[in-house]
This record gives sequence, structure tokens and C-alpha cells, in this order.
Amino acid sequence: MPHTYEYPRPSVTVDTVIFSVIADDLKVLLIRRGVEPFKGAWAIPGGFVGMDESLEDAARRELREETNVQGVYMEQLYTFGAPERDPRGRTITVAYFALIAADQREIAAATDSDAVEWFSVYNLPPLAFDHASIVEYALTRLRFKLDYTSVGFQLLPKKFTLTELQAMYEVILARKLDKRNFRKKVLSMGILEPLEETKMEGPHRPAKLYSFTEDELVAWPQHPTMGGEKGPLAGLMGRRSDGA
Amino acid sequence: MPHTYEYPRPSVTVDTVIFSVIADDLKVLLIRRGVEPFKGAWAIPGGFVGMDESLEDAARRELREETNVQGVYMEQLYTFGAPERDPRGRTITVAYFALIAADQREIAAATDSDAVEWFSVYNLPPLAFDHASIVEYALTRLRFKLDYTSVGFQLLPKKFTLTELQAMYEVILARKLDKRNFRKKVLSMGILEPLEETKMEGPHRPAKLYSFTEDELVAWPQHPTMGGEKGPLAGLMGRRSDGA
Repeated sequence: MPHTYEYPRPSVTVDTVIFSVIADDLKVLLIRRGVEPFKGAWAIPGGFVGMDESLEDAARRELREETNVQGVYMEQLYTFGAPERDPRGRTITVAYFALIAADQREIAAATDSDAVEWFSVYNLPPLAFDHASIVEYALTRLRFKLDYTSVGFQLLPKKFTLTELQAMYEVILARKLDKRNFRKKVLSMGILEPLEETKMEGPHRPAKLYSFTEDELVAWPQHPTMGGEKGPLAGLMGRRSDGA
Repeated sequence: MPHTYEYPRPSVTVDTVIFSVIADDLKVLLIRRGVEPFKGAWAIPGGFVGMDESLEDAARRELREETNVQGVYMEQLYTFGAPERDPRGRTITVAYFALIAADQREIAAATDSDAVEWFSVYNLPPLAFDHASIVEYALTRLRFKLDYTSVGFQLLPKKFTLTELQAMYEVILARKLDKRNFRKKVLSMGILEPLEETKMEGPHRPAKLYSFTEDELVAWPQHPTMGGEKGPLAGLMGRRSDGA
């Protein structure tokens, strides 16, 4: 298919911010750049969009190639296109964010590269390009969605205790929440299924396990009078599968 | 600045969905294409990104050139990049949405082109490219944000009645809301300032005028226990000015 435009064309890349909650900290998966520019610096994984692949396919391919991560929740974040953001020339990047649940994390560890590492989002090394801004934007989006949707459950294992659920909220929001209010609120939402199983949270403290009841991401039913309803948000949200 | 990539490069455009509420209907501003492909078809305004301008600058420039619209609320929507979306060759478009308040609308009428027209979002003509999908996505985003943020006030004049406020919600959500519940809810939010002035809503019905108290977009304070707070969302939202 010939290009007939007379306009100069920018390069287009995809870059992905990968979050996971590890040992009560919110971590981001970074790779160390092996080539110029910013050779040796840490960066979020990404690369050029192929001419015959969709943007999400490109993001998932780069993630797989560079970090071995696949099958995780992904969502388009924002497109960054400041004219001087890449010293090689005009490059526009479509940024994604991905969430890896605790029970999916072995996929990221499976890469044999020592140039892939988890860092605390609260203590990042200097990053290549404008990647620090992209990570910051992703954290803002994650916090916003945590308040209004069920996206946070993508970070939990399939079965979790209320302590684990609250710890996930606290590390993302970077502050403590009141235990009693938190439990009352989440249990009233009708999105948690209590399981028969328990998990030990101390030598003598078996804690009930729960699972998330919804198959899809949902928005919380906040504004019945303003129009709000709990419901699937497929059109607005990312997804876990690789399907197009 | 020389490009040294060996990768083929796609074209990059910006396209903007412009909403306004006119005569109790949610309208979208369309332009009739004067060139191939899709010559003669209606489309949302947009065009190619210049090599030295930011994406938002490009979107605002195209809007000004094609529809005379400027100084309105704009927010980046989503980037569409399906490989076959443009018959001329691989073209990735960064879509924006803009909201025009009732008292800003003369700016759009000032263009002397008869190829610019408002259409009901609920009764659109066939659109060029994948623009129908882009409009649908913009409507989904607008509905979502209407529930969770103050974005809807960008569609109202500076002074409005509660009847006008409710009508704006109803036309965007495409359903009727209970008047008493609606008023109770919006008045309890602490975001409306009652003015001394009134406006006639019938021969004998003077209705109180209100204004929106916040300078910035805010998210509603929904989840105090889940971490939610009312506060500025500058990082996540669009803006009204042309500033970079």
C-alpha cells in the first residue's frame, strides 16, 4: 500500500508501565537500555510499532520480547508527543500500563536477562527519555481508577484476604486506611465472594479468603441519581487477554 | 535533526470529537471532506501533526483552521491505530474530545464554510474512516466522566438553572433522572454557588441561577474509605486554555 502523503512522518513507539505489588510495595518493571541513546539507563519496556500490527499488539509483543510478560491486564494510558522527547528525532509514543497479579509474577522472572528488574515506584532510578513522566502519569491513572473501578483486583491473586486487599489499596494510595471503614465499604459493594478456605495471617490468625465476583472490570455504582450504574466498562478499559 | 531509524514510519494525525448541548440534544460538530479519500463524506475535524508541534497544539490548530473553534475544553481521548483504518496507508490518529459551552458556541458559527455542521450524536450520517467508532468512544468517555467528575460543567453557560443542569445530564445519559433526587444530590456536593439572579423558565416561573464553584476539574468525593478525595485532577484531565 503506497504512501502518497507529502508530509514528513514521525516515528511511533509503544512503551508500557508494568505495575505489581511485591512485599507491600508498588513496583515497576524496568529494563536497562543496551543501545544509545540513554545506553545503560533504566527505561520502561517498549519499541517501534510494526507497519502491520495494531498498537496493542505492538505493546504486547515488546513486553513479551523484552520481559517475558504476557497474558496480563493492559490498558492504553496516553500518547506522549512533545517534539523534543527523543534525541534521535520526532518520536511519538503510545503509552500503556499493565498490571501483574501476585500469582502471575513468575512470568516476569522467567527472562534470563539481568537487565530486567523490579523497582519501587517510590524510589526509581533516573529513567531514559520522558519515562519518569510516563510512570508518574500511570500512577495517577492507577490511583484514579482504583477509586472508581475494580481495576485493582488485577493486582491480587485469585484468592485473597481482606488484609491483602487493604494492603494493596494502601501501597498504591501511599497512605493508611481505616480498617473497619474499609471492610464495611468493600463488603457492602457486592463484588466479593467469601470462600470456604482460610489463610494463616499469623500463628493463630486464620483469615477468610475472598474472590472477586466479576468477570469484567466494573465501575462502582456511585451516583444512582447522577446516572451512575455498576456495569461492564469494556469500551473504556483495558483487558487481560491478547485478543484483538 | 536527522532521522536515523531504519524502521518504516506511519503517518500521524489528530482528530477531535466536539460536543455541545444544543436545544436539549447532544450535538457533534462535523466537517464535509473536500478531498479523497471519503470525499464528500462527513468527518470529525483533524489533520496531520506538524513535525515541530505538540499533539495538543496540532489538535487545537486543526480545530481552529477547520471550524474556527478555539479556547475550549480539550482532553486527549485515545489513540486509534488499526493497520487498515486509512486506505492511503498506515495512519495512527491521536483522538481528542472537546466540549463547547452554550455561551461559547458563536465561535463555531463564525466559520463561513457551509461544510461545517452540528449533528445529533444520536442520529449521525455515515462517517469517513473509523470516525464513527471514535465518536462512540468519546460518548462513552463523556458519560463515564460525567458520573465521576465535574467535566459536564464545561458544557453549561457560566450561569445556569438546575433545570438546565439536569437537562444536560439527561441528554448525555439518554435517560430521564428523578428531579428531586437529582437536586438533592447536586446541592449536597458543595460545588454549586446560588446566585442572586433568576431566569424565567416559564411565564410565571423564575428559576434560581447557579454557578460552578471550582476553577479546575474535580472528581467527586466518593470513596473516603477507599481513598477518594475531591481534588484537582490536572494531571488526568484536559484543559480549557491553549497553554502548553
